Amino acid sequence: MALARLVDVHTHVYLPRHCTPSTNFSPLTRASSRTTIYWDRDEKIKFMDRHGIDLSLPTHGSISSPASEAQTLASQLNDDLQQYCADSPSLTPSLKRLYGFGLLPLVPEISTTALLEAIEQISKLSYLKGIIMGTRGIGKGLDDEALDPVWAALEKAGLVVFLHPHYGVDSQAWGDKNNGHVLPLALGFPFETTIATTRLILAGVFDRFPSLRLLLAHSGGALPQLSSRLASCIDHDPVVASRLKHDARWYLGKLYYDAVAYGPEELGFVSDVIARSQRYETGSSVPTNTAVDRTLGSGRMLFGTDHPFFPPLQSTEKWASVVENLQAIDAVTGWGQAEKDGVRGGNALSLFNLV
Amino acid sequence: MALARLVDVHTHVYLPRHCTPSTNFSPLTRASSRTTIYWDRDEKIKFMDRHGIDLSLPTHGSISSPASEAQTLASQLNDDLQQYCADSPSLTPSLKRLYGFGLLPLVPEISTTALLEAIEQISKLSYLKGIIMGTRGIGKGLDDEALDPVWAALEKAGLVVFLHPHYGVDSQAWGDKNNGHVLPLALGFPFETTIATTRLILAGVFDRFPSLRLLLAHSGGALPQLSSRLASCIDHDPVVASRLKHDARWYLGKLYYDAVAYGPEELGFVSDVIARSQRYETGSSVPTNTAVDRTLGSGRMLFGTDHPFFPPLQSTEKWASVVENLQAIDAVTGWGQAEKDGVRGGNALSLFNLV
Repeated sequence: MALARLVDVHTHVYLPRHCTPSTNFSPLTRASSRTTIYWDRDEKIKFMDRHGIDLSLPTHGSISSPASEAQTLASQLNDDLQQYCADSPSLTPSLKRLYGFGLLPLVPEISTTALLEAIEQISKLSYLKGIIMGTRGIGKGLDDEALDPVWAALEKAGLVVFLHPHYGVDSQAWGDKNNGHVLPLALGFPFETTIATTRLILAGVFDRFPSLRLLLAHSGGALPQLSSRLASCIDHDPVVASRLKHDARWYLGKLYYDAVAYGPEELGFVSDVIARSQRYETGSSVPTNTAVDRTLGSGRMLFGTDHPFFPPLQSTEKWASVVENLQAIDAVTGWGQAEKDGVRGGNALSLFNLV
Repeated sequence: MALARLVDVHTHVYLPRHCTPSTNFSPLTRASSRTTIYWDRDEKIKFMDRHGIDLSLPTHGSISSPASEAQTLASQLNDDLQQYCADSPSLTPSLKRLYGFGLLPLVPEISTTALLEAIEQISKLSYLKGIIMGTRGIGKGLDDEALDPVWAALEKAGLVVFLHPHYGVDSQAWGDKNNGHVLPLALGFPFETTIATTRLILAGVFDRFPSLRLLLAHSGGALPQLSSRLASCIDHDPVVASRLKHDARWYLGKLYYDAVAYGPEELGFVSDVIARSQRYETGSSVPTNTAVDRTLGSGRMLFGTDHPFFPPLQSTEKWASVVENLQAIDAVTGWGQAEKDGVRGGNALSLFNLV
C-alpha cells in the first residue's frame, strides 16, 4: 500500500509579475504589499512543513488585463509557475513538492486562438496539471458558447479546471453594517461558484464535454444543498424542463470538490450528494429511497487549505483554518481510513496523475 | 399516541385586497390574473385534500405600499386572513384546517408604533399564529437596530416569524441566457434567506432575543452548508471575532426550518446541523469529533409545499413538488417513524400550539 500523503489542492500564489497595477490584482490591495507570503516559495514550503503537507498545487489568481496584454502576461505567468515548481524540493525521486494550476488569458475580446494557444502551452509545462478559472469567462460567464472550443481543448488535454470565485455576489445585499469581510467571504464567494456551476449545467456543457474535469472551490459552495431544489425547479420550468440529458443531481457526481468546508457534517453531506448521482443515471434502477453509501462519494473530494488566506489572528504554531479542515475530514461519520486517506491526498495524486 | 397529522407550514395566499396595483404585488404579474388559485379557500382545501394535508398555515406575501397606506392595508389583510381561516372546515372539534401568518407593515418610513400595533392586533387574532417577514425590514435589512422593539414584541407575543425571500439576489449574476425562472428561484431565493439570517446572527439579534422563534423558508437555503465556513470566517475576522456570544453554528440549532428541500440527503444534513448546535453551547463538553444524532435535529423541521407555486407542467393527480418533499422526509437515513411523523406534522402542531 502506498504511503498516505497530505496534498493541498487549494492554495494560492501571486507571483511578482502578477502583482503590478496593470493586473488589477485585488488581494494585495487588502494586504500589506510588503508581505512575501503571496509569492515566496520558501514561505509556502515552510507552511507546508508546519502542517505536514507533502505536496501542494498552488494556483494563480485570475488576470484582468486588456486583451492586448493578457496573452503575453498569462504565458509569462505560466512559465513563472513552471519554474516555481521546478525549483521546489523533491518529495520522491519522481515527484516535486509543488505542482500548479496555470491560467488562460480569459478577458473580454481575447481571441479563441489565444485561449487555445495557452492551453497548448500549459499542456507542455510538466509541472502544471490544470488551470484556474474564474466565473466570468471572456465577459459573459462560463455558459458562453464562445468557450466551447476551450472546454473541448481542456477536455482533450486532460487538464483539471479549478473553478474559483473572485468577485462575490451582490455586495449591496450585505447591508451597511460593518461585518468585516465575513459576508462576501463566507457567502458571496460560495454563491458565485454555485451560480457559475449551475449555469454550466443549464448550458449543457457537461452534456457536450462529458470528460471535462472540474474541481469546485469550497466544496462546491451551496450547490450540494440546493441541488434537489435545482432539479425540481428545472423540472417545473417549461423553458428548461426538457433541455438536459440528466436530472440536475446527476451532474454533481461528475464534479470534483475540494474539502474546504470546515466541518465534518458538510463534508459527509457533499459525499452523499456525489454518491447519489448514480440514482439519476439514465435508465438507472437505483431506487431513490435507499440510503446512499457516502464512501462512494469521497473519491471526488480533495483536501485544501486556501493558504495564504485565513491566517490566524494571533500567532500560533498551526493555522486554525487548516486544522479545522483536517479535523473535519477525520470526523466524517461513515468514512473509513481509506476514504480519509483518499481525501487527504490519495485522490489528488490520482486526479493529477502524480505517481 | 396522537393521530399523525400532515401539516403544511409553507403555503401562500394572496387575498383579493392584496392583489391591487397599489400593493405592487408581483406573483400575479407572472401568472394569469384570472386564476383563483392565489386566494380561493376552496382551491386551497381541495389541494390539501388531494395530498392528504390535514392542516395548513397560509402566509401572506409582503407588501410594499407607501407608509401612509401600509398600516391600514396590513391591518385589513390580517383581519381578512383571520376570516379566511375562521370560515375553513373543522379538523377536530377544537381545530380548524387553516391557520395563518399575518403581516406587519414593514415598509420604509413606517413608525415603530405602527409595527407594534400590528403585532398586538395579530396576537389577538385567534387563527394567526405568526407573521411573515421578508428580508428588507423597513428598508435597511433585518439587522437594523430600529427593529429591536419589533423583535422584542414578537418574542414576548410568542409569534413565530416565517422568514421568506421575496427579491432574490443579484439578477445580473444570472447572465443573459434564457433559463426561465430557474436561477432566481433555485438559487436567488435561498441566497436571500441565507444572507438575511446571517446578518441577523452577526447583528447579535439572537443573543439579544434568545426566545425569538424564526422559521426559515426552503430549509434555511444555503445557511446549513455554509455554516462552518461562516464560523471560520467570523473567527478569522478581527471586526467580528469577539462580537457574538456563541460560535455561529450554535445559532442554527435555535432556528426552525421548513422541510422544503426536495431531497432526503438535504433534510438529513439540515437535521445534523441543528443537532450539532449543542457542541457549541458555551462551556459544552460535547466533543466536536463525535457523530451527531440527527434525530435530535428533526424536531425543528416542518413539512411544507410552497403551494400554489411549483404546479406540475402537465395535469397530474398529485403535484410532484409535494410528492418529492414527502418522499424526501420518508427516505431520510437515521430518522425513525417518530421523527418522520414529527416533521410531517407533529412539530408544527407543537410549535404553533395547535392542540
